[in-house]
Amino acid sequence: MSRFPAPGFTGSPLLRLNHDQDDREGFYQHASSPSARLLRLDGLTPRIDEHGALIWGSMIEADPDAELALLGMLDGEPCFVALNHITENSAQRNAAMSAALSDLRHGEAATYAIARCLVDWHSRHNFCARCGRLTKPFKAGWVRLCDKETGGCGTEHFPRTDPVVIMLAEHGGRVLVGRQHQWPPRRYSALAGFVEVGESLEEAVARELFEEAGVIASDVRYLTSQPWPFPSQLMIACIAKVESDVTSLDTDELEDVLWADRDDVLASLNDDANAKFLAPPPYAIAHSLLSRWAAGA
Amino acid sequence: MSRFPAPGFTGSPLLRLNHDQDDREGFYQHASSPSARLLRLDGLTPRIDEHGALIWGSMIEADPDAELALLGMLDGEPCFVALNHITENSAQRNAAMSAALSDLRHGEAATYAIARCLVDWHSRHNFCARCGRLTKPFKAGWVRLCDKETGGCGTEHFPRTDPVVIMLAEHGGRVLVGRQHQWPPRRYSALAGFVEVGESLEEAVARELFEEAGVIASDVRYLTSQPWPFPSQLMIACIAKVESDVTSLDTDELEDVLWADRDDVLASLNDDANAKFLAPPPYAIAHSLLSRWAAGA
Repeated sequence: MSRFPAPGFTGSPLLRLNHDQDDREGFYQHASSPSARLLRLDGLTPRIDEHGALIWGSMIEADPDAELALLGMLDGEPCFVALNHITENSAQRNAAMSAALSDLRHGEAATYAIARCLVDWHSRHNFCARCGRLTKPFKAGWVRLCDKETGGCGTEHFPRTDPVVIMLAEHGGRVLVGRQHQWPPRRYSALAGFVEVGESLEEAVARELFEEAGVIASDVRYLTSQPWPFPSQLMIACIAKVESDVTSLDTDELEDVLWADRDDVLASLNDDANAKFLAPPPYAIAHSLLSRWAAGA
Repeated sequence: MSRFPAPGFTGSPLLRLNHDQDDREGFYQHASSPSARLLRLDGLTPRIDEHGALIWGSMIEADPDAELALLGMLDGEPCFVALNHITENSAQRNAAMSAALSDLRHGEAATYAIARCLVDWHSRHNFCARCGRLTKPFKAGWVRLCDKETGGCGTEHFPRTDPVVIMLAEHGGRVLVGRQHQWPPRRYSALAGFVEVGESLEEAVARELFEEAGVIASDVRYLTSQPWPFPSQLMIACIAKVESDVTSLDTDELEDVLWADRDDVLASLNDDANAKFLAPPPYAIAHSLLSRWAAGA
């Protein structure tokens, strides 16, 4: 895999800590350490310096009432994020966020993804899905607890990660890309969909390709994966050989599809003026998928 | 992939339906169809006939107050499961469940996994994690809705699927298997762990191998995947080359590990009396992983 650039939102230098046990004393020691850092965010948008690095402040910048999550260690320094309640739509990205994604260095984007997923998940999961009571951050912010001591049911809730398959159907040396109605003009990308309960990755790829484009997968191969923090997906990229290039679109999902050969894909990845379509941005796994396919992977 | 048996809990003949829209009329038409079937369960344990097939009854067997989920279509017949509130610990398996897993035919086990995941998820998610109010089944049982018409916040909640990496560390022609404290005597299997927010599959494999066994992965390759309905995991099986066979165990997680060569693994998979360890059962993806590795995958 090393001959390809690493996929987006991977390669964080952050050392994750093991939060199997509730170590409150260790947590407070880290939080009161003079070297402790706090990630600076505007809502869910990261602050970035001129080198594309995340900006960290000191712990005194946190609202005294804010709960904290311990993200992990960077260069031996404990790194925190404040669990402020964010009301923005976590699946949407505004202009500032899109600019930040282009500017963030590889690795820094991955650290940001971890923080963003946690802050957003806490914001949207204040209550216990089992009994309806208020929950609270637990285990350094990596769990929410429905506390028995305050009448709760004792359930521990873990941050959610939703697996998504994203795939290129391949037929006769060409791959299928599609566009959704709300995308920028000329943008096409790989088809994608959430893995449902009770299916394998390979089954999800075949189901989504059939549902969205009417093509029948005969062979599915895994290529690569990355996290996608809008709000918290695990993107799993595959190539699927299909039996025919005749498509039948689910027009609720897709506005159009097209078949692209290697030259078409390379022109799009190179942003050529005459390219058949506008490629997805480099931090999206569809970009990695198209690059790897074009390189013969 | 076709030269290997399909992994456990895959290959359901059930045709899934698209529930992007709320089609109440279609749902009630299916539910009142004379050909509609209802899955027979004892709690979460399936009823199985002498051929290893699931047993279906008619819709009149459902408690009149029970909500229903439309699993999909089998041979053109709509298939339902009743969303009874189940209180058993969904991660545990009792003796009846273990026997059922051994008896269920391939494909039938996959259909059961879909039903079990849905029933169990509804049982444990009656309340809105965002606002704490009671939610209700929606979109044929594939969503729970926090209904605005009864004062809720309008959030749609989707069944949760937690990605888990399960992997063999490989060094010098041998692979690493470990045992947890509560497992049956002599049972060893692949190491495994939940993918955390903000990491790729490859990063999760490397982190888990280091946390649990102290080995450092230099290359990770994907092999296969399957669902695991206890309660609702997506198992993603990988092989990771590691730099050394010197291990350092997290003894909270693992009681012991051992390195097994190809002959050791084949002896275990064949249930030889002198095998170095007792292999995981065929419906577990660790069995598929060991089989494929032993066959040179």
